Amino acid sequence: MVETYEIPETQMGCIFYENNGPIEYKEIPVPKPKPTEILIKVLYSGVCHTDLHAWHGDWPLDVKLPLVGGHEGAGIVVAKGANVSSFEIGDYAGIKWLNGSCMGCEYCEQGAEPNCPKADLSGYTHDGSFQQYATADAIQAAHIPKDADLAGVAPILCAGVTVYKALKTADLRAGQWVAISGAGGGLGSLAIQYAKAMGLRVLAIDGGDDKKELCESLGAEVFVDFTKTNDIVKDIVAATDGGAHGVINVSVSEKAIAQSCQYARILGKVVLVGLPAGAQVKTPVFEAVVKSIQIKGSYVGNRQDTSEALDFYTRGLVKSPFQVVGLSELPKVFDLMAQGKILGRMVLDTSK
Amino acid sequence: MVETYEIPETQMGCIFYENNGPIEYKEIPVPKPKPTEILIKVLYSGVCHTDLHAWHGDWPLDVKLPLVGGHEGAGIVVAKGANVSSFEIGDYAGIKWLNGSCMGCEYCEQGAEPNCPKADLSGYTHDGSFQQYATADAIQAAHIPKDADLAGVAPILCAGVTVYKALKTADLRAGQWVAISGAGGGLGSLAIQYAKAMGLRVLAIDGGDDKKELCESLGAEVFVDFTKTNDIVKDIVAATDGGAHGVINVSVSEKAIAQSCQYARILGKVVLVGLPAGAQVKTPVFEAVVKSIQIKGSYVGNRQDTSEALDFYTRGLVKSPFQVVGLSELPKVFDLMAQGKILGRMVLDTSK
Amino acid sequence: MVETYEIPETQMGCIFYENNGPIEYKEIPVPKPKPTEILIKVLYSGVCHTDLHAWHGDWPLDVKLPLVGGHEGAGIVVAKGANVSSFEIGDYAGIKWLNGSCMGCEYCEQGAEPNCPKADLSGYTHDGSFQQYATADAIQAAHIPKDADLAGVAPILCAGVTVYKALKTADLRAGQWVAISGAGGGLGSLAIQYAKAMGLRVLAIDGGDDKKELCESLGAEVFVDFTKTNDIVKDIVAATDGGAHGVINVSVSEKAIAQSCQYARILGKVVLVGLPAGAQVKTPVFEAVVKSIQIKGSYVGNRQDTSEALDFYTRGLVKSPFQVVGLSELPKVFDLMAQGKILGRMVLDTSK
Amino acid sequence: MVETYEIPETQMGCIFYENNGPIEYKEIPVPKPKPTEILIKVLYSGVCHTDLHAWHGDWPLDVKLPLVGGHEGAGIVVAKGANVSSFEIGDYAGIKWLNGSCMGCEYCEQGAEPNCPKADLSGYTHDGSFQQYATADAIQAAHIPKDADLAGVAPILCAGVTVYKALKTADLRAGQWVAISGAGGGLGSLAIQYAKAMGLRVLAIDGGDDKKELCESLGAEVFVDFTKTNDIVKDIVAATDGGAHGVINVSVSEKAIAQSCQYARILGKVVLVGLPAGAQVKTPVFEAVVKSIQIKGSYVGNRQDTSEALDFYTRGLVKSPFQVVGLSELPKVFDLMAQGKILGRMVLDTSK
Repeated sequence: MVETYEIPETQMGCIFYENNGPIEYKEIPVPKPKPTEILIKVLYSGVCHTDLHAWHGDWPLDVKLPLVGGHEGAGIVVAKGANVSSFEIGDYAGIKWLNGSCMGCEYCEQGAEPNCPKADLSGYTHDGSFQQYATADAIQAAHIPKDADLAGVAPILCAGVTVYKALKTADLRAGQWVAISGAGGGLGSLAIQYAKAMGLRVLAIDGGDDKKELCESLGAEVFVDFTKTNDIVKDIVAATDGGAHGVINVSVSEKAIAQSCQYARILGKVVLVGLPAGAQVKTPVFEAVVKSIQIKGSYVGNRQDTSEALDFYTRGLVKSPFQVVGLSELPKVFDLMAQGKILGRMVLDTSK
Repeated sequence: MVETYEIPETQMGCIFYENNGPIEYKEIPVPKPKPTEILIKVLYSGVCHTDLHAWHGDWPLDVKLPLVGGHEGAGIVVAKGANVSSFEIGDYAGIKWLNGSCMGCEYCEQGAEPNCPKADLSGYTHDGSFQQYATADAIQAAHIPKDADLAGVAPILCAGVTVYKALKTADLRAGQWVAISGAGGGLGSLAIQYAKAMGLRVLAIDGGDDKKELCESLGAEVFVDFTKTNDIVKDIVAATDGGAHGVINVSVSEKAIAQSCQYARILGKVVLVGLPAGAQVKTPVFEAVVKSIQIKGSYVGNRQDTSEALDFYTRGLVKSPFQVVGLSELPKVFDLMAQGKILGRMVLDTSK
Repeated sequence: MVETYEIPETQMGCIFYENNGPIEYKEIPVPKPKPTEILIKVLYSGVCHTDLHAWHGDWPLDVKLPLVGGHEGAGIVVAKGANVSSFEIGDYAGIKWLNGSCMGCEYCEQGAEPNCPKADLSGYTHDGSFQQYATADAIQAAHIPKDADLAGVAPILCAGVTVYKALKTADLRAGQWVAISGAGGGLGSLAIQYAKAMGLRVLAIDGGDDKKELCESLGAEVFVDFTKTNDIVKDIVAATDGGAHGVINVSVSEKAIAQSCQYARILGKVVLVGLPAGAQVKTPVFEAVVKSIQIKGSYVGNRQDTSEALDFYTRGLVKSPFQVVGLSELPKVFDLMAQGKILGRMVLDTSK
Repeated sequence: MVETYEIPETQMGCIFYENNGPIEYKEIPVPKPKPTEILIKVLYSGVCHTDLHAWHGDWPLDVKLPLVGGHEGAGIVVAKGANVSSFEIGDYAGIKWLNGSCMGCEYCEQGAEPNCPKADLSGYTHDGSFQQYATADAIQAAHIPKDADLAGVAPILCAGVTVYKALKTADLRAGQWVAISGAGGGLGSLAIQYAKAMGLRVLAIDGGDDKKELCESLGAEVFVDFTKTNDIVKDIVAATDGGAHGVINVSVSEKAIAQSCQYARILGKVVLVGLPAGAQVKTPVFEAVVKSIQIKGSYVGNRQDTSEALDFYTRGLVKSPFQVVGLSELPKVFDLMAQGKILGRMVLDTSK
C-alpha cells in the first residue's frame, strides 16, 4: 500500500524580505517539487549559527530574497517529482546545508559535492526548513531511517555531519589521541561522541568545571581547562605522551589554532572546521616541516558522510542535547543566539 | 549565442526484437529526453564484446526488448531536459555502459555507481548508441572535451575506462612493475599505454612476434611470449627482479589467472577485469597469506574514472587503433567478432 | 639507578634434538646476546599451534636443530649488546614470531619485515621462549609497557597481533560490519574484542550455544551458528543488510572461505589469516569482478602492529582467557593441543 | 670470490674544530665501523646548503665537534661490522642525512625514521662524507645499484630524495597538475623531472628566460615567470584550468608560500619542503575550510623513499647537472655557496 498525504496550498513559515529585516511568521505558499525534487513535510528544524549569518547577510555570498532559512530539517516525504527513484512517499528525509549540486563537475564527480561551484544551499540560495513544507533535491536529501526520533535527528544533519566529516578528515586510527578544541560546545560535544564511537581517545579542551563534567560524561579521557593551565601546549603533550595525533579545531580563535599546530604530535593532523571571519592559520614553516604535520581544511560532509553520521546517531552512539520550541519563536532564538545564550541545540517544532 | 539543432522525428538505427533475432537497420523514432536526460546526436559508436552478449542474451540479466544496443557512443548534445544543468546544447557527450543509477543507495553515495542495484545499462536495459540519436542520463553521460576526435574517443568510453579503472584498482606507484596478461589485444594494448602514462613499468604477456612488436611499440619494457616460455612464472619473476607489483588479467583463462597469483610479487596486487563465464580464481591460501597478496575484482569505471581516462586520451597519451564502418554493417561486425577475427576496435559511423 | 641482574650460566628449558623426538625439560646454557640483541629473562610464554608444527617439522621450511621452541615470550631485559639503544636493562620485552630481519631489503624498507627473505623466526630458526633466558633482536623485540601483566600479555604477542593485523588489512571504517569466521576460538575471540575496540560491528560465526554465549559476551552484535543455519550466506546478508563489509577468516576450511566471498558485501574485503595446509581460495571470477570484492592475505604484524595491539591490551580493551602451567609440562600441552582439547590459550610459567 | 680492500690507517679529509673555524684539509684517522656499521670508501660527495649551516652552527641543534661534514656521499663498502647482513664488501653504498635512528620508537616503527628523537645525522652529529672513508649505519645507508655513476648519484642522496619525498607527500594522481615554486634551482630542477616520471603535469615557477628554457627542457608544460606576471595566482589558476592539484614549495619566501595556498585547486595539497629560518605559513582559515585544502610539511625521505628515488635516477629518468672539484676545494665551494654563485650541484672528488 502506498501512503498518500494531503498537501495544502498554503502553510506557516518564517520568512524575511531583506537582510536584517523583520522575520515574519506567516502564511506562505507550499512549494511544488521539480521532477528531480521531493517535497518534505518538515516536522522539526534545528537552528544553526549559519542561519543568523544568512539573515544578517554578512558573508561574501548573496542570499536569495525573500528567504525562508533553515538547513537542519527533518520530516516525511509527502510528494516527489516524476524522476525521483531514490525516495518513496512516506520515507523520512532530511534537509541539509547542500541542497543540490550540478553532479557533472570534477568536484561532484569525486563526491566532493559541497565544493561544487554551482552548489545550491538550503536556507541560503534555496528556501529551507523554517517552514512546514520544503522542497529538496532528491540526490542530496538525507535518507533518515524510519524509526528515528525526528526532533533529535535534526541537529545531526548539519552539526553532526560537520564534526563527523572533520574526524574523517583527521584520518586517525582507533587508539590514537584526538584533541578537540572547544569540546564543551554544541559541535564539540558531538565531536567527543563521534570520536569515541570511532575508537579514538579524546582529550577535550574548554574552560570551566561544568564543561569538564560534560566532556567527561560524554567520553573524554582527559580534560584540559584553558582557563587554568599555564602552558596548554606542554600539558597536552604530556597528557598524550607526545602530542595529539589529530586536532579538531571547533574553537575558532586564531591563538587556539596556532597552539594546535604546536601540541599536534609529530606527523599529526590539524583539522580546521569552524569559519571565523578574517582569522588566519599561522605556523612556523620550519616546525611544520621537521614535525611533518598536516593542516587540513574540512568543510561539510557529502552524501556518504551524512549517511554514516546518521547511522551512528540511530544506533544510539551519539546524543545531542536539544530544546524544542515553536517555529514562531525563531526571532527569539536568533536573539539568544546573537547574545551567546544558547546551550546545546535549539530545535523548532513547525506545528507551533 | 546558443547553438540549436533541428531534431528529426525519425532516424536510422540497428534494432532487434528478440535475442538472436535479426538485427534490423531501419527507420525508428528519435527518443525524447526526460527532464534529467540529454539527447545525444551519436556520430560514432564502438562495438564491444558485451554487445554480442546482449544480442545473444546469454548473461544472467535480461535485456530490454526490442533493443538498440551499443554503449560506446560519442556525439553532440542536441537537446536536454529541463533539469539538466551540467550540459549545454552543443557540448560533446559520450554514452557509456552505465547509463544511470539511483544516486541514493550506499554504493551511489560512495561513487560506486556501477555497483548500484538499480543500474540502468546502455545497450542492455536502455536503448544505446547503435542509432543516430540516443538519450542518456545527464549525471552519468561522459563529458568529452570539445576538440576531441569523436571516432577515436568512442572505444575509450568502455574499453579505455575499464582498463584505466583496473590500473587504478592495482594501486601502484610510479616505477613499479605491472604485468598485463593478454597485452596484445584491444583492452591490453590500451592498458599498456595507460600504464606507461602513469609512470609504471610494463611487462606484456601474449603470444607471437606480431604481438611482441605491437606491445613494445606501445611502451612495454619486457615481453613474455607464453607460447615460447617453459616456465612463465619463473621468467616473469626474473624479468621483474622478484615478481610483478601488480597484474592486470585482461586474459580470462583460468590457468593464466592462477599463474598470475604466482608471479605476483610479495605484497602484490592481482586485478581481475575480464568476465569469463564460469571461470574460477584459485590459489593456495598458504601462499596468499605468506606472500600477503591481494586479489581484486575491478568492474567498470565511474564518472571520475571516465573523465580521467578521457583526459589521458585527449592529451594524446593513449591511442586506440580502430577501423570505421557504417552503422548498417553492424551484423557483419558481429559475425567477425564471433569468429575472433577483429583486430583493434571497430567503430560505426552512424551516418552510413 | 640502573637495575642489574645476575645472569646464571645455565637455566631450565625445553629442547628437542630431532623433529618428533622427545621434548626434554633440562638444564641448558644461557645464551649470550650479540651486540644487536637483548637477553630476556622469560617469565611466561604462550603456546601456539605453530610450535607444534615446528616440532613435527611438517612445514616446507626446515627448523634449526636442536631447537628450543616458543614465540610468545614475555619477560624482562637483563642484558643487552653494546649497540642496543632502544631497550634499557629492566624494561619489559616480548619475543614474537619474527625474531629478526635484514632491515635492508625492499620488504624491510617498507616495514613489511615479516616478508623479508632472510627472516629469522623465534622458536623455529632461532631458539625461542620455552626457556628461562632467551636472546632477541633488539629491533624486532616487542616493547611491553612496564605495568603489564606478563602472563596475560604473552598470547597477545602472536595471537593478538595476528588478528589485529588482519583487521587492519580489512581496512574498514568504524560502523561497518566485520564477519569473523571461527569467532569462538582463541584467535576469533581476540578478533571480536579488537574489532569492537576499533568501532566495528561484529557478526560472529561458530557452532554451539557455548560459543554463542562467549561471542556475545565479548561484544558480538550478531551470532550465526553454522550448525543450525540452512543458508549461511543468506542469513549473514540479511543480518548485515547487504553483506559483511569485511570478513576475517580465522576458520580455515575451504568451504568456509569460499562462502565468505559470497556473503561479503559489494566492494567487501575478505581477509585470509589462517594457514591451512593444501587449502585453496576458490571463487567465481564473474562474481568477484561484478561485486568488486578484494581477497587479501594477511600474515603476522610488524613492529608497529605489535605496539598497537599491545596498547589495546594494556588499556584493558582486550582480554584473553588463559591457563598457566609450568614450562616442564610442555609435552602434555602439545598432547592436548594435538587432540584439539585446549580452550583459550595455554601459558607456561618458566619458573616451574 | 669475496672482494677485499686494503684499508689505510689514515686518510685525507676536511675537518673543522669549532663553528666558523678554519676548514682544514688534512690527514686524519680512518674510522672503525661498529658491529652494526659499514665502512664506505667515499669516492664522491655532494655539497648541500645544510653543510654550510653545520659549519656556521646557526641552527638550534648543536653539531659534534670537531666535525667532518657532508651527507651526500657515494662509494664502496670496504669493511663491515660483524652484525651487518644487508651489505657485502664491494657493494655500492650511500651516506645520507639520516645516518641512524633508534629503530625502536613509535616514529621508527612506522618507517618515519627521520622523525626519530634519537636521529644521528651525517655531517652533523656523526662524521660525514667530506673524507675518504666514512662509517655509516648499515640500516640507513643507501643501497646504490652496482652500475650507477657515483659522481652523479651523490646529489640524489639528499636533494633528489627530498623532492621525491615532497612529491609523494603531495599524493597526486598521474595526470594532475603540480606547481613547483622555485623550479629552476637545484632542488626544483630535480622536482620537475621526478614529477614528470610520475606522470604529473608540471607548472614551473621561477624568474628569467634562462630558467624558462631550463624548466621547459626538463619537462615543464607551463612556465610562469614571477618577474613578469601581474597576478601570479590568476595566471596559474588559468593555466591549470582551476588551480594546481599540488604545490611543491621549494622556494621559501613567505609570500610565495602564502600565494601557493591561493593558487592551489579546491581540495589541493600544498607541500612545504624548504626550511626558511623564521618564516611562517599564513592563510585565511575561511578559505582553507571552504576550499578544503591541505598544507603538509615534508621532511627528508626514509629508506624506501631513498631506494625509489635512486631507482628513478638509475633508470635514466632524472638527471642532475653537477660540476666536480677536489675535496680540498671545499672552502672555496662554501664561499661560492654563501655568495649564491653556484648553479646546479657541486660534487667533490675525494681523491684530490
